[in-house]
Amino acid sequence: MLKAAIMGFGTVGSGVYEILEKNADVVSNNARQPIEVKYILDLRDFPQYPFQEKFVKDFSVIENDPEVAIVAETMGGKGAAYEFTKRCLLAGKHVVTSNKELVATHGAELLKIAKEHNVNYLFEASVGGGIPIIRPMFQCLTANHMTQIAGILNGTTNYILTRMIRAGLPFADALCEAQAKGYAEANPSADIDGLDACRKVCILSSIAYGDHVYPEYVETEGISKITLNDVAYADKADCVVKLLGRTVLNDDGSIYAFVAPHFVSKSSPLASVEDVFNAIMITGDMLGDAMFYGQGAGKLATASAVVADMIDCARHNEKRRNIGWGDGSKKLVRPLDTFESGWYVRLKGKDAAEKLKAAFPDCTLLPSEIGEVACLTGKVSTKDMRAACEQLKNVAGCMRVL
Amino acid sequence: MLKAAIMGFGTVGSGVYEILEKNADVVSNNARQPIEVKYILDLRDFPQYPFQEKFVKDFSVIENDPEVAIVAETMGGKGAAYEFTKRCLLAGKHVVTSNKELVATHGAELLKIAKEHNVNYLFEASVGGGIPIIRPMFQCLTANHMTQIAGILNGTTNYILTRMIRAGLPFADALCEAQAKGYAEANPSADIDGLDACRKVCILSSIAYGDHVYPEYVETEGISKITLNDVAYADKADCVVKLLGRTVLNDDGSIYAFVAPHFVSKSSPLASVEDVFNAIMITGDMLGDAMFYGQGAGKLATASAVVADMIDCARHNEKRRNIGWGDGSKKLVRPLDTFESGWYVRLKGKDAAEKLKAAFPDCTLLPSEIGEVACLTGKVSTKDMRAACEQLKNVAGCMRVL
Repeated sequence: MLKAAIMGFGTVGSGVYEILEKNADVVSNNARQPIEVKYILDLRDFPQYPFQEKFVKDFSVIENDPEVAIVAETMGGKGAAYEFTKRCLLAGKHVVTSNKELVATHGAELLKIAKEHNVNYLFEASVGGGIPIIRPMFQCLTANHMTQIAGILNGTTNYILTRMIRAGLPFADALCEAQAKGYAEANPSADIDGLDACRKVCILSSIAYGDHVYPEYVETEGISKITLNDVAYADKADCVVKLLGRTVLNDDGSIYAFVAPHFVSKSSPLASVEDVFNAIMITGDMLGDAMFYGQGAGKLATASAVVADMIDCARHNEKRRNIGWGDGSKKLVRPLDTFESGWYVRLKGKDAAEKLKAAFPDCTLLPSEIGEVACLTGKVSTKDMRAACEQLKNVAGCMRVL
Repeated sequence: MLKAAIMGFGTVGSGVYEILEKNADVVSNNARQPIEVKYILDLRDFPQYPFQEKFVKDFSVIENDPEVAIVAETMGGKGAAYEFTKRCLLAGKHVVTSNKELVATHGAELLKIAKEHNVNYLFEASVGGGIPIIRPMFQCLTANHMTQIAGILNGTTNYILTRMIRAGLPFADALCEAQAKGYAEANPSADIDGLDACRKVCILSSIAYGDHVYPEYVETEGISKITLNDVAYADKADCVVKLLGRTVLNDDGSIYAFVAPHFVSKSSPLASVEDVFNAIMITGDMLGDAMFYGQGAGKLATASAVVADMIDCARHNEKRRNIGWGDGSKKLVRPLDTFESGWYVRLKGKDAAEKLKAAFPDCTLLPSEIGEVACLTGKVSTKDMRAACEQLKNVAGCMRVL
C-alpha cells in the first residue's frame, strides 16, 4: 500500500481521485500495490464529498508526513505550485504533474532537485493530456536526431478552428461556443493567444534537444486574427488552418521554436485532427514521421496520464527515472529571421494581384474574392516576408504553409 | 563503452549497424556511453563491408564472450532465433528484437527467463516498426482498462489496399506492384493472409491483458478475396477497406481477438492511414481514443526502435524493466460467435435486394451495380452472420464495419 496526496482538487485533481477509486483494480495491478490518497490539499471546501477526512488546507501536513510517498500536483500556475513541488521533492517525495506552465518555466531546476534527492518529477500529462508523448520521446525515439516537431497542442483553439472550417462560424462566435461548452475559459487568452501551446513547445523542445527552452524565446502568435476568408482560401489551396507549435532542428544544433497558425496540407495526418483532439508529429532522421493522437485535455483523459505517472513511481519506487535536461545556458533557440518556408499571403486593394506577383514572382495565385487576392509563395525567409508585408501595406492575412 | 552483438544481418540487422554508426553521437549521449558492435552473426558472407573482423558464423562466440552485454536479434523466425535468444538470456545478456513471430509464440517464456536472470527482453520494434507503442502501453496507459485495440498493423497489405482504392488496381496487380517495390515478398502469404498482423495482435493483447495470447486463438482472415467492387461499395458507404487487427474487451475480462478486413468509416483517423504506414488505435476507459501512427516497416524506421531498446538497456544496465505477462493459461480469447457488429454484405443474383432485406430487415441498401446488391446491416452476431451467408449462398463479399 502506497500513500499519496493530491494538491489542487480542480478538474484534473478530482479526475485523479476518481480514477484511483474507479480503476483501483488495474491501478494496483500495474503498480504492484494499491495506491491510497491520504490527503487532498485545496483551500476550497467540498462538502458534497463523503471523504471529508482527506481534505487539508495546510500544505505542511503533506510535507511533514513521511508516509506520503507520491504527490500529484494538479494546482496549475507557477506560484504556490512551484514552492510546494520544490518542498515535496526536498522532502524525498515523488511529484507527478499536469502543470505545463510550471514545467515550462522551472522544469530544469525541479528535475535537478528531483535527481539530487533520488525521486521522480514526472509530467506525462503536461503535453497532449492523456496522449503518451513524454515517455516515447525519452525512451523510444532515442536513436534519432529529432529534426522536426509539429503539434496541434491546444484543444480549445483546435475546436474553434474546426467550427470555423466545418460550420462557417466567425472566430468570435466559435469562441463563444467553445466557452459555452466549457472548452474555453472566461478569459481565453492563454489558449487563443497561443501561450498554452508555447509552454508545450518548450517542454517538447527541452526533451528533444536536452537543454531547457524557456517560453520567452519561443515566438508565439495566436488565432484571433484568423477570418473565414483565410479559412476559405485554405480550402482552395487544399489545406486547413491549424495552430501549430513547431520546433525545427538546424545543422548546427540550434533550433527554431515557435507557435503560429499555419496552412496545413490536407495530405498531412495533422490536417484531419479535429475538435478538441491534439496530435504531435515528430520527425526522426532514422524513423521518419511518427504521430501521436488523442484527447489533449479533459478531466479523465488528462488525469489518466497523471495516474500512470503515479503508477510508474510506485512500481519503481526505489529506482529513479534517469530524465532531465540542461539549465538553458546553451540558448538553443535561434531567431526566426533566417527560417525559410512557403507562405500564404492575402492582400486587399486595387492591383493586389500585380503587387503580389511583383513581391513574390514565383507565387501561385488562389481563386480570389472581389477586392482582394491571395497567393501561396515559394520559400521565403521570415525576415524577407515581414519586410514584404510591411511594404505591401494592406496585407489581411499571412501564414506559413506546412 | 558497452559491447553489443547483432544476430542476423538482413534488412533490420544492417539498419541497426548503420544507425549505431551514423547516429553514434545521439546514441552515446542517450545511453550515457558509446555502444560498440563487437560481433555480427550471419551465415552469409558480406565481402562488401570494411568491418570484416566483426562477422562470425558461430553463435557460441557471442554466447561465451562475457564482454557482450546486449544482443540485437534481427534474424526472424522461431527456430535458431528462439534457441539463440534463450541462450543469450541464460548467459545474462540483454536481448532486444524486432522478431514478432518469436515474441508472439514464445514471449511469455522468454520474458520469464529474462526476469530470472535479471536481464531485459525488449521488443519495441516487433509491432508498428519504428512507432512507439510497446512502452506507451506498458507505462503510459496503465491507469486504464483497455477496452479496445484496432490497428493497421501490416504495411504491405495497407499499401495494396491503398493502391486498389486510389489507383483502381485489382488485387493481383496491386500485389505485383508491391512485390516490385520490395514491400511484399516473393511468397507474400504471411502478409496478405494476415499472419503478420495476427502476431502483432497477439503481442498487443498479451501486454494489454497480462496473459499470453497465442496465434492459434486469433481468428485470421487476409485480403486476397477483396475486389474492386468491395472497394467501390466502401466508398459509397463513406468508408474505406482496411485490414485491421482487433481486440475487444468483454465485461467478464475475456476478449475477442481477430484479424479481418473491415469497412472503416472515413471519419475514423484510421481511414486516412495510407500506403505502408501503420497506426494503432487504443481505447482506454479513462483516456478515450489514442492513436499511434508512423512507418510500420522499413529498414531504418524499424532499426531505430531496436537501437532505442539497446539504449534503454545501456542506460539502465543494472535495472531490469519490470515487464512480462502470464503463460496463457487464462485462455482469455473467446470465440467470435457471440461478437456483434455492423456488417457489409454483397450478394449476387436475381432478387438479391429482396433476399438481403429478408435476411437483415433493418439493413441499408447501397447504390448497386447490375446483377448484385450490397447493404450495411445493423448489429448482427458473427454466428448469425455466418448462418445467413450460408443460407444466402451467392454472397460475394462480407466484412465488418468499424
